[in-house]
Order: sequence, then C-alpha cells, then structure tokens
Amino acid sequence: MAPRYAPSLRSRLAPLLFFLQLGLLVIYGNYIEIESNVKVHGITVSHIYPDFQDVNVMVFLGFGFVCTFLVRYGFSGSGFNLLVAIMATQLAIILNGIESWYYRGKIRIDLRSIVVAEMCTASALISIGAVLGKTNPVHLVLIALLEVSGFVLNKWLLQTLLKVQPLNSIMLLHIFGTLFGLMLAWMLYRKGSEQQFEKEKSDRKTRLFSMLGSLFLWMFWPSFNTALVDVSTPGRKLAAVCSTYLALAVSAVTAAALSVLSSPNGKLNPNHMQSCIIAGGVAVGVSMSVVHQPWEAMTIGFAAAVISTIGFRYLKFHMLLAFQCHDTCAVLSTHGLPGLLGWLAHLLLQLKDCDHHTMAIRFAVFHICTLLITIALSLFMGFITGLLLKLNIWRPTQDKKCFDDQAFWEVGNQDIIFLQANKYVAEDNCISAPKISNNKLQ
Amino acid sequence: MAPRYAPSLRSRLAPLLFFLQLGLLVIYGNYIEIESNVKVHGITVSHIYPDFQDVNVMVFLGFGFVCTFLVRYGFSGSGFNLLVAIMATQLAIILNGIESWYYRGKIRIDLRSIVVAEMCTASALISIGAVLGKTNPVHLVLIALLEVSGFVLNKWLLQTLLKVQPLNSIMLLHIFGTLFGLMLAWMLYRKGSEQQFEKEKSDRKTRLFSMLGSLFLWMFWPSFNTALVDVSTPGRKLAAVCSTYLALAVSAVTAAALSVLSSPNGKLNPNHMQSCIIAGGVAVGVSMSVVHQPWEAMTIGFAAAVISTIGFRYLKFHMLLAFQCHDTCAVLSTHGLPGLLGWLAHLLLQLKDCDHHTMAIRFAVFHICTLLITIALSLFMGFITGLLLKLNIWRPTQDKKCFDDQAFWEVGNQDIIFLQANKYVAEDNCISAPKISNNKLQ
Amino acid sequence: MAPRYAPSLRSRLAPLLFFLQLGLLVIYGNYIEIESNVKVHGITVSHIYPDFQDVNVMVFLGFGFVCTFLVRYGFSGSGFNLLVAIMATQLAIILNGIESWYYRGKIRIDLRSIVVAEMCTASALISIGAVLGKTNPVHLVLIALLEVSGFVLNKWLLQTLLKVQPLNSIMLLHIFGTLFGLMLAWMLYRKGSEQQFEKEKSDRKTRLFSMLGSLFLWMFWPSFNTALVDVSTPGRKLAAVCSTYLALAVSAVTAAALSVLSSPNGKLNPNHMQSCIIAGGVAVGVSMSVVHQPWEAMTIGFAAAVISTIGFRYLKFHMLLAFQCHDTCAVLSTHGLPGLLGWLAHLLLQLKDCDHHTMAIRFAVFHICTLLITIALSLFMGFITGLLLKLNIWRPTQDKKCFDDQAFWEVGNQDIIFLQANKYVAEDNCISAPKISNNKLQ
Repeated sequence: MAPRYAPSLRSRLAPLLFFLQLGLLVIYGNYIEIESNVKVHGITVSHIYPDFQDVNVMVFLGFGFVCTFLVRYGFSGSGFNLLVAIMATQLAIILNGIESWYYRGKIRIDLRSIVVAEMCTASALISIGAVLGKTNPVHLVLIALLEVSGFVLNKWLLQTLLKVQPLNSIMLLHIFGTLFGLMLAWMLYRKGSEQQFEKEKSDRKTRLFSMLGSLFLWMFWPSFNTALVDVSTPGRKLAAVCSTYLALAVSAVTAAALSVLSSPNGKLNPNHMQSCIIAGGVAVGVSMSVVHQPWEAMTIGFAAAVISTIGFRYLKFHMLLAFQCHDTCAVLSTHGLPGLLGWLAHLLLQLKDCDHHTMAIRFAVFHICTLLITIALSLFMGFITGLLLKLNIWRPTQDKKCFDDQAFWEVGNQDIIFLQANKYVAEDNCISAPKISNNKLQ
Repeated sequence: MAPRYAPSLRSRLAPLLFFLQLGLLVIYGNYIEIESNVKVHGITVSHIYPDFQDVNVMVFLGFGFVCTFLVRYGFSGSGFNLLVAIMATQLAIILNGIESWYYRGKIRIDLRSIVVAEMCTASALISIGAVLGKTNPVHLVLIALLEVSGFVLNKWLLQTLLKVQPLNSIMLLHIFGTLFGLMLAWMLYRKGSEQQFEKEKSDRKTRLFSMLGSLFLWMFWPSFNTALVDVSTPGRKLAAVCSTYLALAVSAVTAAALSVLSSPNGKLNPNHMQSCIIAGGVAVGVSMSVVHQPWEAMTIGFAAAVISTIGFRYLKFHMLLAFQCHDTCAVLSTHGLPGLLGWLAHLLLQLKDCDHHTMAIRFAVFHICTLLITIALSLFMGFITGLLLKLNIWRPTQDKKCFDDQAFWEVGNQDIIFLQANKYVAEDNCISAPKISNNKLQ
Repeated sequence: MAPRYAPSLRSRLAPLLFFLQLGLLVIYGNYIEIESNVKVHGITVSHIYPDFQDVNVMVFLGFGFVCTFLVRYGFSGSGFNLLVAIMATQLAIILNGIESWYYRGKIRIDLRSIVVAEMCTASALISIGAVLGKTNPVHLVLIALLEVSGFVLNKWLLQTLLKVQPLNSIMLLHIFGTLFGLMLAWMLYRKGSEQQFEKEKSDRKTRLFSMLGSLFLWMFWPSFNTALVDVSTPGRKLAAVCSTYLALAVSAVTAAALSVLSSPNGKLNPNHMQSCIIAGGVAVGVSMSVVHQPWEAMTIGFAAAVISTIGFRYLKFHMLLAFQCHDTCAVLSTHGLPGLLGWLAHLLLQLKDCDHHTMAIRFAVFHICTLLITIALSLFMGFITGLLLKLNIWRPTQDKKCFDDQAFWEVGNQDIIFLQANKYVAEDNCISAPKISNNKLQ
C-alpha cells in the first residue's frame, strides 16, 4: 500500500512556511514603514488604487485560475498560486527596498511598491507554470523565492550597469521568468514523460475555470502594463493603455485564425484561445516605451500572436523530445517568445527613431547586453534552483501522483474517501465536506 | 461517417479573420491616432479608467459567461463572444470616428471612444444571444460586423435628423440589438425546432458559470449606464449611479417573487434569477436622462422585472410557435421588452415635466420617430444579414451539431476522443489536453 | 409520494417579497432623495466609485460564491445571497438614515451611504452562513431583515451611548453577525444532525467556485476595510490599505502552514485555504484605527489565522456536540474568533499608546462595554429571530431536503427530470433548459 500515498509534507512544508513567514515578520517589524508623505487630499492613493486592484486580481485570480485547467489539479493550481504569490510578493517588497534600506535604514512602502513587487511575483508565477504539477508546494515556495531574488538582482544590475529605465527592466519579467522556468523544467525532467502523464488532462468544466482566469488576464493586461506609467506626463498613460488594448485585440483575432488554420480538422484549440490571446499584451509591454502609433502596437500584437500560436502548436512537443523539457503551461509560447519579440520590436523601433548612427549602435549594444544579462542570469539562477530542488530532502512527488490534488489536499477520490472510521462510503468524485476533519477526531 | 462531423471551417473562418484583421490594421495605421490633448496630471484617464475596465469586464466576461449555460457549448459561448466582441469593437471605433475622419482626416481615440465602441458591441452581443448555438463562428463575425454598422448608422441618423442626445441614442442598443437578433432568428429558423434541440440543455455547473456572468453584468450595470455621463455636471453621475442601483435592486427582488408566483410548483427558475434581474438596469438606462427621483427608478425597475419575467415564462414559447422564431437566450424578455419599457418611461416622464402642450406634443412626435427609425433600421439590417447568412457558402451547422462545441473546438466527447493513433481511449468527459495536438504530428 | 417534495413556497415567498419590496418603494418614494451637494467636478464620486464597486463585488459575488461549495446547493448559495443581500441593503439604507429623517424629514443617499448599507448587509450574510442549507428563502429574508435592524440598532447605541467612532462600530459586524448566526443555529438545531446531512458535501468543481468567491473576498478586503476611511487625512487610507494587505498575506501563509501541521496525513484542507486566509483582514479591520506599524498588522494577521485554522479544525465539531449548534460555513472560526481577536488587539494597542492610567482604564471600560453591548444585543436579536422562525407557518425544509436546490429551484435530479408530458427522460445531472417552463404550459 505504501506507494499509493504521496509522502507527507507535514515535516517539510509547515516548518518552512512558519520559518519564512516569521522571518519576514521580523524583517518587516524592524525595517519597513508605511510611506507617510502622500500628496494632499489622498489623490495619489485614489489614482493608483484601481490599477493596484487590477494587478492584484491578475496575480492572485488570473494566474491562479489559468492553472486550474488540469482536471485533478484545480485546488493546487489556484491554492498554491495564492500561497506562492503572497510569499514572493512579501520578499520582493524587501528586496526592492534594499537600496533604500542601505542609505536610510528603513524601507518605505506604498501602493506603488506593492505593485512593483507583484510584478516581480508575476515572473515567478510564469516560471512555476513550466513545472506545474510535477513539483510539490515546498519546491514551489523555494522556486518562487529564488526566482524573485534573481529577478530583482537582474533588475538592479540592468538599472545600475546599463542605466535601463525601471519600467523597461521590470517588463523583462516575461523573458526572465520563462527561461528560469524552462531551465528548471529541464533540470527536473522525469524519465518517461515523453508519454503523457496519466493525470495530465482537462475537461470542459476545468477549461472554463481556466478560461475565466485567462479572460481576467486579458482584460486587465492594460492595467498591468500601465500601472507604473508616470501619470504626470500628459498622454503617456493613455497611449500605453490604448496600445495594449489594440495589441490584445489583434492578438485574440490572430490567435483564433491561426488556430483554425493550423488544425488538421479546421477547429479551434481551447489552449490557443486561452494562452495566445495575451501574447500581444506581453510583447507590447516589453516594448511599450517606444510604441507611439496604433499600427505599431497592432503589428506587434499580430506578430506576437503568430509566433505564440505556432509555438504552441509545434514547439512544445519538440522541446520535449529534443531538449527533454516538459513545459506544462507552455510558458515558452505564452510569455517567452512574445517577450523576445517585444524586445526585438523595442530595438527596431528605437533604431528607427535614432538620428545618428553612433546613437543607434550605442543603443543596440546596450539593448543586446540587456538581453544577454537577463538570459544568462535567468538560466544560471534556474540551474542553481534546479540543483537545490534535486536534493532528495524535499520529497518529490512520484510520477503517479503528478498532476493530482490528492497528494497534497484532503480531497476524495473516485475510489476511496477517507475510509477511517468506516463511516464514509465511496461516492463518485464527492468529498463529504465540512465535518470530515472533525469526525476523524472521534 | 460523413454526416457525423461538422464541415471544417478552415477555408472559411481563417481567411475571413485574417482579411478583416489585416484590413483593420491598415485602416488603423492610416487614419487612427491616439488623443494627445489630455487634461493636465492625467486626471481624465484616471477618472474614466475604472469605468472603462468595468465595461470591459461586462462585455468580455459578463456577456461571455452568461452564454456558457449550455452544457456542451461553454467554449463557444465564452470564446466566440471574445472573438466577435473584439472585432466589433475595432470596427465600431472606426465607424464612430467617420465624421471626424471626414472633417479632419484623422480619427482620434481615447478611453471614452473605446467605451462607446464597446457599447455598440454590446448591441451586437445581444443580437448574437438570439441565434446562439445555431450558427457557426463565420456567421457570428458577419452578424456582429453588420449589426454594429447598422447600429452606428442608426445612432448617426438619430443624432443628425432628430437631434437626439448621443447618450440617449446609444442606450437604444437594447432595442436595436433585440430586434435585429429576432429578425435573424426568424430568418434562420430551422424546421423542427419547435422540438427542443438535442443538446440544448444545461447542468448545475454550467448554470453556475452563467450565474457568474450574470452577476458581473448585474453588479457593473451602474458603470455601463454611467460611464459616458458627463462628470462636469455636478451630481448628474451620482444620480445616475444611484438610480441604476435602485432599479437593479428592485428588479432582482421582483424577478424572484414573480418567478415563484408563476411557477406551477412554487419554485424559482434559475433562468429568471439570471436574466430578469438586469431588466431594471436596461430600462433605467434607456430613460436615464429624465429619471431624477429614487421612486421613479424603482418603479421602472419593478415594471421592467415584471414584463421581463412574464415574458420569459410565457412569451418565448409563443414566439417559437406563432412566429417561428427560436430565441436561445431569450433576448426579447431580457433586453427587448425592458428596453421598450424604458423608452416609454422616458416619454411619460418627459411629458410630465413639460409645461406647454406644444412642447409635449413636439417631444412625443420626436420620441416616437426615434423609436420607429430604430425599429425599422434594425429589422431591415437583420433581414439583409439573414439573407446573407442563408447563402450556403458559409457552411451552416447541421441540426445535430447545434449547441455543440465539438463542431468547432478540438474537444473530446463522452464517446470518442481523438481516436487517431489509437492512443486515446474513451474517457468520460475528459480531454487529454496539452499534448493532443503534438501527438497528432507524430 | 407527498414527503418526496418540499412544501411549495408560492404562498409564502412571493407575497412576502412583493409586500416588502412595494413597502420599500413607498418609503423610498416619500423619504429618500439623492444627494445633490457634491464637490465640484464630480471628484467625490470618482474617488469612491472603485471602492464602491469592490464592496459590491464582495457582497454579491464574493459572499455568494463562497456559499456554492455544497454540491447540490449552488443556485441557492449564490441566488439567495443576491436576493437577501439586496433586500437587506435597501432596508439598511433607510435605517441608517432614520436620524436624518427625524431631523430633516428626508434621507439623502450617496455612494458612501450605499457602502455603509452593504457593510451592514455583510453582517447579515455572515449570520446566514451559519444556517445555510437548513432554512428556506422565507427564513433567510426574515433573518436578514431582523439582523440588519439589530445591527443598525447596535451601531446607533454604541455611537450614541459610548461615542464609538462610526467606522469602529461598523467593523463590529463580524462579531455581531457571528453571534447572531450561532444563536440562530442553536435555536434551529435539528435532531440527528450530529450525523452529517445526506447532501452536505462538496466536489472538486463546486469547491473551485467557492475558491473563486473566497479569492474575491481576499483580494478586495483592503477595499472593504478602507472604503469608509476619510481620504482627507493624508496617509490614513494608504496605511489602512497596506495594513490590511499585509495582514491578509500573513494570514494566507499561516493558514496553509497550520492546515498542514494539524492534518493527520500532512495535507492541506481546502476549507482552510478558503476561509482562514481572510482571518487577518477581519481582525485588522476591527482594530484598524490603532494599527500604525506593518508588524502590528502582520502579528494580528498571524494570530488571527492561527485561531481561525485551529478553530476550524477542532472547534466546529465540539460546537455541534457540546452546544448542539450546527454552523454550516464555520462562521465562528472565519469571522467570529478573528473579530474578537481584532477587538482585543484594539484594546491592547490603545492601552499601549495611553499615557495616563486613568485614560487607559477609562478606554478599557468603554471598550469592554462596547463588546458586551454587541454580544448581548446580537444574542438577544438572534433569540427573537429564532423564536419567530420556529413558527410553523414558514414551512421549514425537511431534513432530507436540506442542502438541496431541488426544494426551491426548478432543476432536475439525477433520477427524475420533470416527468410531466412524458417528454423528458432522465439524464444524469442535466436539466433541459430553456423550454421546460414553456412546455409545461402545453
């Protein structure tokens, strides 16, 4: 019977979470204070608050529910996302404030710094998408914390060494998160996973939950791209919102068209209508500071949807065979390729605007260095994290228990439901909900 | 075996979408620019942004998820809604700006013009509700584009000929969308559909998804009605929000009461608690410019819920028998009748406020003309669209494949799942998700 | 056959709803008017509108979908929540304005007064959580109206007798709602419910709906706590948002850690990840006016999650055995205990800040009186309401029909579906949707 059950996480997850959370509490107690110097009449808070809530909804609900598409992994998809995101955000707030702590001894937080931290968290959530279902929550927490640390380090390096603008360096989150996640997926590759995992499948209802998450991401992507845009420059924010909106629009239509075109029987693929519709938002976000015309945004959205859909249809399988890299949520196609396209669009549009050759070459060199540093650091951090996770002390999930909530959650099964006390008989897919835990105490 | 499969859409849908999207891209590239003249400190964008996002959520998530109630049509309900809505919005932005293009050579867009375009789109989504499940996505795209063109034309006629205020002419979207949709449903009537379609049914879970969509519509309806209200008139916006809120409140209670009262066994009907609760918002939206007192809004909400619930319970079936008009989402009861009631309330309240007989008669004539033009144009456009759709080149869905995602989406069935390669065995309601498409390439 | 069907509600629910709604309409018509004195340029409405919508989403969607976890009670969970919440809000608007009516003859409403009313409603929704599934909608409407009346009375008493600040008295809603609900649950105890009810269970999909509701509550809790905070005090609102955010963050992590730690097989409990994650928001809301430092908010969040999770795991069962009190949604652990903890934190933090002993003692006495009045009034009102509901005229649900939508909604069953007319054959879990009601008319 032993191999039927996944190894208990009690001795790993609970101490880890307590240790980390109490550690964060101590640090927050000593070094963090809430910004008191707001503009009069609270105008600042009111202005950023709706953006803050939109980003909140994207990070906790959007990314969480996108991951519920696996038929037996819904609790893990949404629940672990919440857990991991909130730990990573707390850490990112500290890491983003280290410089301020170094000079002033205190880190001051406001809504803007929480939004920045949630964007750093988004990069960790992208990484997690690549290894979803094949890791346990202990892994996920470690991944998220290391990824966020690496991303903040990358951001700091780019801003310090290459004078990259803060917003531009944050928007590289898609590239950093994807490469980190792919390196991890490669490190954690399980033999035999060219064959589909037993429980890696979805059904109509879980797909709809996932569609819900995707729609929230799609609808609120303009907030994600523009939450940090300075409102004091007239028109900048409006241009950013409109560009993102148009890029998303073109993406959605293009993804649908290509999905039908590339399907052997001329049908739409639900995956494409969920993942590839946001490709335009990703790409235009990375290149936003140089996108000024609607047609630029729309062309970027079109190209992003094309490579995202093509990548989704053909690349995933080859990644698996050629590189032994099993990418659960296809983050390469959803975030990686559109992110790289955005970087390229940024380069091309900037070159077009340059008057002098020297300026253009100088910018190109800087821009390429930005990408190289990001790639190098993300792969390196992913490699280190992978090494750490391969240690056996974290009790990895067995292959049979991959993509299964039952390994981590007190839920029933079609076959057995809490047979203790001989009270609960088998019922299809049903868990006798609120009194289970109590009855076991009898 | 042939009749088992729906005709492939590859040669129809993909080229159509590419052609339209690239056409839109070219037009946007040449004629659209983003408004640069914003008020200082970006106050304008911040003020309308939350309303813009609420309308966004209503159009893409609300209307989309309301249509997921059919047990086998969830992907189509939400996915096609996204596809169609985003195409219609892009077109509406252009059409709304034609006058500006005529005089200035350029169309300037800002968040307000996107909100207006999304409202025009809402009228197309209402039309689509009437023919949902009996059409293929090619049909839906054509319907949406023609409907939006008709609606913008109607709006322009009313504003030019009758000097109707812009907001009032937009709010006629409920009447226009409903009549257009009903005309279409009548044109596309299939023999034998007095009998229920085989797959036209819902279950508990799909109903909950649909309830989610309805709740988003219900909650954000105040944003829908007031997003375009001028904030520079003090108190106007607050009055509009409160009126809509109260009308929606009374609607919800009244719909519940009438649903129980009209049920043979004294039970609530889930349809009524989804569709009829928003009747008050529809009606008060149409008459908003003359509703000043809470009791007026509440009375309108009460009357709207009464006719909507009664219509839902009794009218739909008679429409089918008497007029051979199969209205899937019962848009007549949900949007049509409350919209007409709102028109009537507008007339009565305005007449009450008139001091002179001549003024009153003059207004009544204008108001009746407004309605007649709207009715005539919507029916005419619906008729034209119906004629176009009856052409066989669009490959209509067979009766057996109506209300079935399988005709358009790469999803499994209870019986067969992608039997190619002999790899996938039948599993109840499960689709082996992410690797399907790849495996087929082997 | 008779006992198979629940007693029809036609003669109870419909007249009650009509009577109440028309009564409210008359009162609104005579005494309510919309505030006309807004600040120039509509700044006020724009500022509070996003908060208003967030609270709206929490009350109607969040609380509603949290209650959909029962596998056969989803329509009731979300539908009755809407019905009851909107009636209670309408009543609360009137009750909150009685003083203004007394002095000025009119009650003026604006978005702020609707937000206050929705918060009063939240206390009624908490009460309803304790008796969910064991009551019919007539009960629920009566409970909600009496609870809201009691809560507004409590608020008025505290503000008048003890000079408690309005926001502090409103935030006691968690304690008031819980105790009212528990008293009701005790009064309405059914013999034999130490055994689990036949239909009191959940499945994976209903849990995900419930998770969706929980996430909306969790994400928008900062809006709930701060919607009424005065924006004219610079920094106060920002501090409140950040405190709530941090408390919620710590809560979520702590609840996960404790859930694993207290589980016999080291697994997470989905209930804990839904209910206990908001404990920090509840506790910090009650003590918000004295929480100034991040560590205070985080410590409160930590302690709240600890008692909430422990309470959920162990207390619920003992409540049932020892006090014969069946608490469906475990509101004691979710709202009651964290609320009491927040009260205690308020006391301790205020005492810490006091300079003089006399001040401290004076405050402590007042603060304890606040709690005692709240407890006494909530239990008394709960007792009265319980007596009223025990009258047989309300047709209580049979034990067998508890937690079953079928008693109140026109939905099918796995076994029988509307056998009238011999048209509908049994289908698993499917309801033939839109034409059912019409066909019955044939």
